[in-house]
Amino acid sequence: MKRLRKYLHHQLFDGAEYDGRLTTLNRFLVLVIILAVITAVLSTEPRLHDNWHNQLLIAEAVFGTIFLVEYVARIFAAADQPGPESAWRKRWRFIRSPLGLIDLAVVVASLMPLFVSNSAVLRTIRLLRVIAIMKFGRFSKAVMEVWGAVKERGDDLIVTMALACVLLLSGATALYLTEGHIQPEEFGSIPRALWWSIITLTTVGYGDAAPITVLGKVFASMVALSGIALVAMPTGIIAAAFSEAMQRRRDQRLEEMKAHLERLDKVDDAVEAKIAALERANNPRHD
Amino acid sequence: MKRLRKYLHHQLFDGAEYDGRLTTLNRFLVLVIILAVITAVLSTEPRLHDNWHNQLLIAEAVFGTIFLVEYVARIFAAADQPGPESAWRKRWRFIRSPLGLIDLAVVVASLMPLFVSNSAVLRTIRLLRVIAIMKFGRFSKAVMEVWGAVKERGDDLIVTMALACVLLLSGATALYLTEGHIQPEEFGSIPRALWWSIITLTTVGYGDAAPITVLGKVFASMVALSGIALVAMPTGIIAAAFSEAMQRRRDQRLEEMKAHLERLDKVDDAVEAKIAALERANNPRHD
Amino acid sequence: MKRLRKYLHHQLFDGAEYDGRLTTLNRFLVLVIILAVITAVLSTEPRLHDNWHNQLLIAEAVFGTIFLVEYVARIFAAADQPGPESAWRKRWRFIRSPLGLIDLAVVVASLMPLFVSNSAVLRTIRLLRVIAIMKFGRFSKAVMEVWGAVKERGDDLIVTMALACVLLLSGATALYLTEGHIQPEEFGSIPRALWWSIITLTTVGYGDAAPITVLGKVFASMVALSGIALVAMPTGIIAAAFSEAMQRRRDQRLEEMKAHLERLDKVDDAVEAKIAALERANNPRHD
Amino acid sequence: MKRLRKYLHHQLFDGAEYDGRLTTLNRFLVLVIILAVITAVLSTEPRLHDNWHNQLLIAEAVFGTIFLVEYVARIFAAADQPGPESAWRKRWRFIRSPLGLIDLAVVVASLMPLFVSNSAVLRTIRLLRVIAIMKFGRFSKAVMEVWGAVKERGDDLIVTMALACVLLLSGATALYLTEGHIQPEEFGSIPRALWWSIITLTTVGYGDAAPITVLGKVFASMVALSGIALVAMPTGIIAAAFSEAMQRRRDQRLEEMKAHLERLDKVDDAVEAKIAALERANNPRHD
Repeated sequence: MKRLRKYLHHQLFDGAEYDGRLTTLNRFLVLVIILAVITAVLSTEPRLHDNWHNQLLIAEAVFGTIFLVEYVARIFAAADQPGPESAWRKRWRFIRSPLGLIDLAVVVASLMPLFVSNSAVLRTIRLLRVIAIMKFGRFSKAVMEVWGAVKERGDDLIVTMALACVLLLSGATALYLTEGHIQPEEFGSIPRALWWSIITLTTVGYGDAAPITVLGKVFASMVALSGIALVAMPTGIIAAAFSEAMQRRRDQRLEEMKAHLERLDKVDDAVEAKIAALERANNPRHD
Repeated sequence: MKRLRKYLHHQLFDGAEYDGRLTTLNRFLVLVIILAVITAVLSTEPRLHDNWHNQLLIAEAVFGTIFLVEYVARIFAAADQPGPESAWRKRWRFIRSPLGLIDLAVVVASLMPLFVSNSAVLRTIRLLRVIAIMKFGRFSKAVMEVWGAVKERGDDLIVTMALACVLLLSGATALYLTEGHIQPEEFGSIPRALWWSIITLTTVGYGDAAPITVLGKVFASMVALSGIALVAMPTGIIAAAFSEAMQRRRDQRLEEMKAHLERLDKVDDAVEAKIAALERANNPRHD
Repeated sequence: MKRLRKYLHHQLFDGAEYDGRLTTLNRFLVLVIILAVITAVLSTEPRLHDNWHNQLLIAEAVFGTIFLVEYVARIFAAADQPGPESAWRKRWRFIRSPLGLIDLAVVVASLMPLFVSNSAVLRTIRLLRVIAIMKFGRFSKAVMEVWGAVKERGDDLIVTMALACVLLLSGATALYLTEGHIQPEEFGSIPRALWWSIITLTTVGYGDAAPITVLGKVFASMVALSGIALVAMPTGIIAAAFSEAMQRRRDQRLEEMKAHLERLDKVDDAVEAKIAALERANNPRHD
Repeated sequence: MKRLRKYLHHQLFDGAEYDGRLTTLNRFLVLVIILAVITAVLSTEPRLHDNWHNQLLIAEAVFGTIFLVEYVARIFAAADQPGPESAWRKRWRFIRSPLGLIDLAVVVASLMPLFVSNSAVLRTIRLLRVIAIMKFGRFSKAVMEVWGAVKERGDDLIVTMALACVLLLSGATALYLTEGHIQPEEFGSIPRALWWSIITLTTVGYGDAAPITVLGKVFASMVALSGIALVAMPTGIIAAAFSEAMQRRRDQRLEEMKAHLERLDKVDDAVEAKIAALERANNPRHD
């Protein structure tokens, strides 16, 4: 029993082996989460939903059951979490934790459709199953590291974002003044013109709002040419911060693996020494 | 009185503590400016303006009053500006300075709607309130540093921009020749075709002007594939200059903080020495 | 005969001289492949196909013949491939290899139209000729190196791609909730909204699906501004990996060229030594 | 006369002072070329052309006259070009050179409208005036350096461009197969689909051709997500090559300026030595 609990704790809570690869059980759960999210996404499509109604229902039931088993196993194994508290306290702490609540919500959202038949309620519940993606929050360590690296460059980001905002606003004001009375639907107020200026400066360019007067086109050209550099800068800063964080993480993991290997070496040495001592004790004459 | 003036001067004119964080009052003003600009932007939207007329009016009055108080406080505290002139001269210098004039304009634009009822005049004034964003000119040090870094690479920028201009013009001429007689509205002259070529080479691509003949599409493809690199280059140069300026600024701020800490250490040492001297003076026997 | 085989093997299988430039025959074949692919691409266009029917047929026959000759020559020269097997075994190995099968498929697809007249079958065969581009698989060494470099950064790519997926899905869900009932064709389900979110976050922005409600535009703006950085990151990682692989390749080629030159120098020295020995043998008196 | 010729040669042919700034005359000519090109571009717009007919004619005459004077001055000053030939040979060499022929063509295109009244001929001539931009070919040194840097990375560019071509073609073929029979105008042949794939993978995205079937959208999404990295790579390579060339150029210019300063120092020393010698000769007693 204790060994099973320890095994489950390692598989579910540690999540990764010393070399950084996910544990077998964790890898299986990642796959199930991805499949469950894809199923939830696809079942919002009426055409698929009507034709594959039963298959989708079965898939939901299967995923829901797996999530239920996982949830129970996690509660069981939570007793092995580090800390001086009693096993049941640790379990209760896991149940109250954000990740525990998400797990519970996913289980409920996945299994309830089997017991409820009110279609309006069902719809909302079905959408809730998309939150299964939040179960990936367990892998948030990498995301946290990226976030930390981004925060370090906070000053740069604030300056560039402020400049980008000023540019977005200037562009919107210019187009509001030149095109506002001609295309009131698209440029009749600064907030409306802001939609144009965001879609232009991110170079998305849907074409649902575009200047048609000569002056409007001249302003829009100036905004487009001068502004893309500015809007691209935060992207560059974030990307640089990200690659730094990734580099640091790789270095750190290398350190961890080295430390682990050294520990293994010491254990090996100790075992060898013990074996040698035993041999010597058994064969006292050979010395 | 003098301590209040000194306090206000530190809060308003220095603006930032030694560790680079904004002073409390400055932070409050930044918030008010952002809220005032958002209000000004939103009030250009007819739907919001009609439904929230009174609320917008009150918000304007509040922001205007805050800006008025800030303006008076700045004039009062301007006497502590560095320089050998008399207090009133310094105040007059602040009033005439660009930032002082912007402050005055924002106060007038924010408070006038309370006294004027002519709606045409009101409209213009209301738009003027967007210039509250220019009060951010106070934070222009960072912008100036970026500008300086960009100027250092002026030569590179001129070469790339000239190349980009030649490409924009070549693309426009090619499309003018191939599509001009088929789509006269979009490609009937080189300036009209320039709109297409700018929107294409910045990869915005609204779709309001696009070639429809085979030859036009071939030329447009060539322009799009060859040209994006060229138009992206100034962006890259500016981004590199910017990140350099940011790095330099971070280094400089670190230096300043070190110098400040050293000064504090010296003050500490002096205080300790003084205390030790006093103690020795009080307890002459212990020596 | 043996020298011809050796010559063909060097020209076709080595493919490149020691300085990295393609062999004459290989360069000719690259040209023929490019022309054959262009012909195959152009012949799918009905207007060209109807007007230039005979010319296209002749071009196909010519390219097919060249590919046939190349195929036979490759089988012949495959006997010089490294390995302990007999010549015919090596040939059979080449015929069964993926590149050999592609070669055969291209020959068949290029020459069959001359013997078949069923137009439906012809169409399919004609399209098959586009696979002539897969003959470029021979140059896959460079591609493999790039792939290797990309795999090294696999962890970074997985993290960024997972984040990008979460963002794509969040954007799609937000727009599905806000615009789904207004534009059911574009946002009526999450998979449909995903099309919008992919086209927006890659900044392509066709404009066939775009939000029209205020809330939808607000969400779309947030997604566009925050998300482009994220979707651009995998691009940056791949680009960095690519340029690293290219640098490594250039270094390696330099090493190879150096080694080749040293070998040539040794051969030169040996030849000179032999000549000197011969001269000494012929003129024993001069010593 | 000789000093004027020397002065003109320095101003027109050297073009730049030792510190890299353009000579006064050259700067004036750059301005005139820019104005002439803008005038030529604007005069293709019927609305402007009809309203400002006479002003445009006068501007043309003025620019034409300036270019004529410049052309004559260049022929006159060409005698000072380096080389052992006679003055007239050098002049003839300039007249035959590409830049000389462009100068002549610009003069003719700018002045002919004053003597010709046939409107069809006039139109063609007018467009020819846009080639005044080719007079900037004189500044092609920077462009040549960039080109040299790009050529150094030729291998990388060929690999990425080949991969980009394969991707463009694969995307076009996939869409031709899935959408060809539904939207024959946009995807009815691979060349037609190529227009879509180029406009998509450069992220321009006009929206004139976009998939409407589910399968088409799935393929297009895959192409868009996987392909943008690939198409962005040549841009990155060219940008890196460019910034390298620019760095090298800046270093070289610094070297040149140093060498020039050293030469000036030597001249100074020589002059001082001469003055000292003269003074000593005049005042022999002081020694």
